[in-house]
Amino acid sequence: MKHIAIVGFESAGMTAAASASMTDPAAKITVIERRPYAIYHPCGIPFAIGGEVPDIQKLIEPAPPMPNVEVHTAMEATALDAKARKVEVQELKTKKHRTVEYDALILATGSYAFKPPIPGIALQGVHAVKTVEDGKAIIDELSRAKRGAVIGGGSIGLETAAALRGRGLEVVLVEELPSVLPNMLDPDMAGLVTERLRENGVEVICGQGVREIIGKKRVSSISVGGRELPADLVIVATGVKPEVKLAEEAGIELGETGGIKVDEHMRTDAEGVYAAGDCAETFCIITERPALSQLSTAAIQMGKVAGINAAGGEETFEGTLNTAVTTMFGLEIASTGLTTNAAKRAGIDSIAGRVRTLDKPRYYPGGRPITVKLLVEPKEHRLIGGQIVASDGAAERVNLLALAIKKGMIVEELSRIDYCYVPPVCDVIEPLMVAAESVLRKM
Amino acid sequence: MKHIAIVGFESAGMTAAASASMTDPAAKITVIERRPYAIYHPCGIPFAIGGEVPDIQKLIEPAPPMPNVEVHTAMEATALDAKARKVEVQELKTKKHRTVEYDALILATGSYAFKPPIPGIALQGVHAVKTVEDGKAIIDELSRAKRGAVIGGGSIGLETAAALRGRGLEVVLVEELPSVLPNMLDPDMAGLVTERLRENGVEVICGQGVREIIGKKRVSSISVGGRELPADLVIVATGVKPEVKLAEEAGIELGETGGIKVDEHMRTDAEGVYAAGDCAETFCIITERPALSQLSTAAIQMGKVAGINAAGGEETFEGTLNTAVTTMFGLEIASTGLTTNAAKRAGIDSIAGRVRTLDKPRYYPGGRPITVKLLVEPKEHRLIGGQIVASDGAAERVNLLALAIKKGMIVEELSRIDYCYVPPVCDVIEPLMVAAESVLRKM
Repeated sequence: MKHIAIVGFESAGMTAAASASMTDPAAKITVIERRPYAIYHPCGIPFAIGGEVPDIQKLIEPAPPMPNVEVHTAMEATALDAKARKVEVQELKTKKHRTVEYDALILATGSYAFKPPIPGIALQGVHAVKTVEDGKAIIDELSRAKRGAVIGGGSIGLETAAALRGRGLEVVLVEELPSVLPNMLDPDMAGLVTERLRENGVEVICGQGVREIIGKKRVSSISVGGRELPADLVIVATGVKPEVKLAEEAGIELGETGGIKVDEHMRTDAEGVYAAGDCAETFCIITERPALSQLSTAAIQMGKVAGINAAGGEETFEGTLNTAVTTMFGLEIASTGLTTNAAKRAGIDSIAGRVRTLDKPRYYPGGRPITVKLLVEPKEHRLIGGQIVASDGAAERVNLLALAIKKGMIVEELSRIDYCYVPPVCDVIEPLMVAAESVLRKM
Repeated sequence: MKHIAIVGFESAGMTAAASASMTDPAAKITVIERRPYAIYHPCGIPFAIGGEVPDIQKLIEPAPPMPNVEVHTAMEATALDAKARKVEVQELKTKKHRTVEYDALILATGSYAFKPPIPGIALQGVHAVKTVEDGKAIIDELSRAKRGAVIGGGSIGLETAAALRGRGLEVVLVEELPSVLPNMLDPDMAGLVTERLRENGVEVICGQGVREIIGKKRVSSISVGGRELPADLVIVATGVKPEVKLAEEAGIELGETGGIKVDEHMRTDAEGVYAAGDCAETFCIITERPALSQLSTAAIQMGKVAGINAAGGEETFEGTLNTAVTTMFGLEIASTGLTTNAAKRAGIDSIAGRVRTLDKPRYYPGGRPITVKLLVEPKEHRLIGGQIVASDGAAERVNLLALAIKKGMIVEELSRIDYCYVPPVCDVIEPLMVAAESVLRKM
């Protein structure tokens, strides 16, 4: 009987457990999770802060019943001996140590919120948005907080800024790079988002970092570009870093991105050890270069591959396009593949086509703007990126673009899809088709 | 200077004119349209009846300005001499005849509402839903009508039934086949639609045809399955037939579906004569058998190909999947490719996977059911059909499935798309992925 151990029980760990259990129903699967509870949904936290999810406890779920899977919570993996195939663990309640032996091990240790070295970041009233505990701490402050400052203009930062604004706070959002959502959107598309934030009363400062978080015990202001802005609640949403301590101390190779290096079977360089999810380094489908994904969706796919392979099956992970969607103040913002800057950094030429149209026929009341930007590699006409800002339907359209990019399609193919049409839902000429033709006219 | 004549100015004719004009800016393009106005939007008519489009006149638009395109309305093409490359036309106002000579001709004559040979179909109060005049006639009757009967459970029938119900009429919908939307949905999926219709007070009768429309001058009832149902407004939505009189009388070959036979360049068997849109026979991408599409979306694609080729360019039409969407009472219903019955008729084996899930994570309030059914050919695992019934997002998802089917993808590829996720918009595991895995488990 094979014994599979899994360290970490979020998207990757849970999917790995389920997939391993399905692949080898006779295997014994042991999950080691540091948290006192099994599953939680980190992407729900901004919406619990905003109140759309009325009870943050709802983000916590018990482990689903899976045959032959034992989930140990409040248990920390403290050391790994990959040669001997043993993990040292500590039960956090009893402080007892014990050893878990395995035939195959899956590291799904996830990531931790990156706190940049800003003076004052340890002050009271400064929070990350990564764990349920972070979320609870922020919610606890909502009643007395008046001025929120969000450091970081990625999707979690934007969602949290909108949440705080929705709770009645004055909010300033600070993004060090020249525009918001820099990993998802080109500056022109990001401008639509900034506009919507400002229309809803969020002050947006781009291109300047936070110099200092100021306060005695508690934060009272932040310093940005020579200005001191009052703030009694500061959110640090400057991204996450792969949690690789266990792997690193065990001598497992890390990649250039800082994630655990794996092959397409999610195998590390230690025999019998796999890694999946935020802690693992994957690769970009377009550039074929090492990349971190750190999205739940990719973690699930990686976890599935690791689980199947650890259980003796055969599956490969095909890389990431970092397909992502975020939403705030009635905008749905989605993106896949490379932005213009990311393409440039990778040495890939790109031509862009951007169109702004309505999501319904002009004669049908209630049509709302949808802006689509496509990036195409001009020699082969291959689609390499897609960005959509709309009121609705951005996510599903970007999923289509992700499929097209993954399959190496050329932009001509997008203009020939058999799209559907009914006036209350969509126009007879699909915006993706209009965007494709706009790129084609440029080429 | 090349002279291109186009007969008909709906989706196919208009796109043909625009594409021909772009392909050969020096060409002279003459459009001959029988209607007294240029463009109209037939798919908007049910929503004008329902009042969502408040003014049915908004469905009529002037021809957009296109260089070198002359659009003649109220002009009928009465005869075609394909050998001599001449069309006889009549100006309907002046009754004057004249001859239009052409180098290339595009037949975009569209389709007409098929009225089945039911006794009483010519009674007052019985209407098709094809032209703006049909729509106006129906709207004129709304103030006195109390009981509507809709014959035909296709998308136009359903949309019109919902429109009449929304206007306060009692409504019965009669579909001769065993379930509604028979060209789009399998009976199990159609059941979800019937349920929604009934919940909203529409009586649905399937598997029985209308025997007779009863009345003296005006309709007073219909006879279905031995029952006489009172009705003072009857809608005949039993589909459309290709309008091929001009082609047929000119000796141009028709296909087995009754549409004008064309090759992939949209060329008929008469030199220099192309056909596009509802009047033309195309082929199914999956079965490669002749098929009628009769959707605006396909007409646009066909018109584009015909226009480019007629102007000396080179483009091919790649066939149809009949990707379609309809909406009523808050449901969005979309479909692409083959239904189980259509696959059976074509001699193609299929395995189905159907899943019902929520369109948001369980912890996020307001999630609504989404049901996805995928049909897969079991030997090669090729996707051959997709059906979705949801509150939202069915259209965009079905567009993705249409792309996958067109590119010959296997169902495994659907379970590996780089999907996006954010709680207010969609769940971390995309319903298409759940459906793909449900099929895979069966195989």
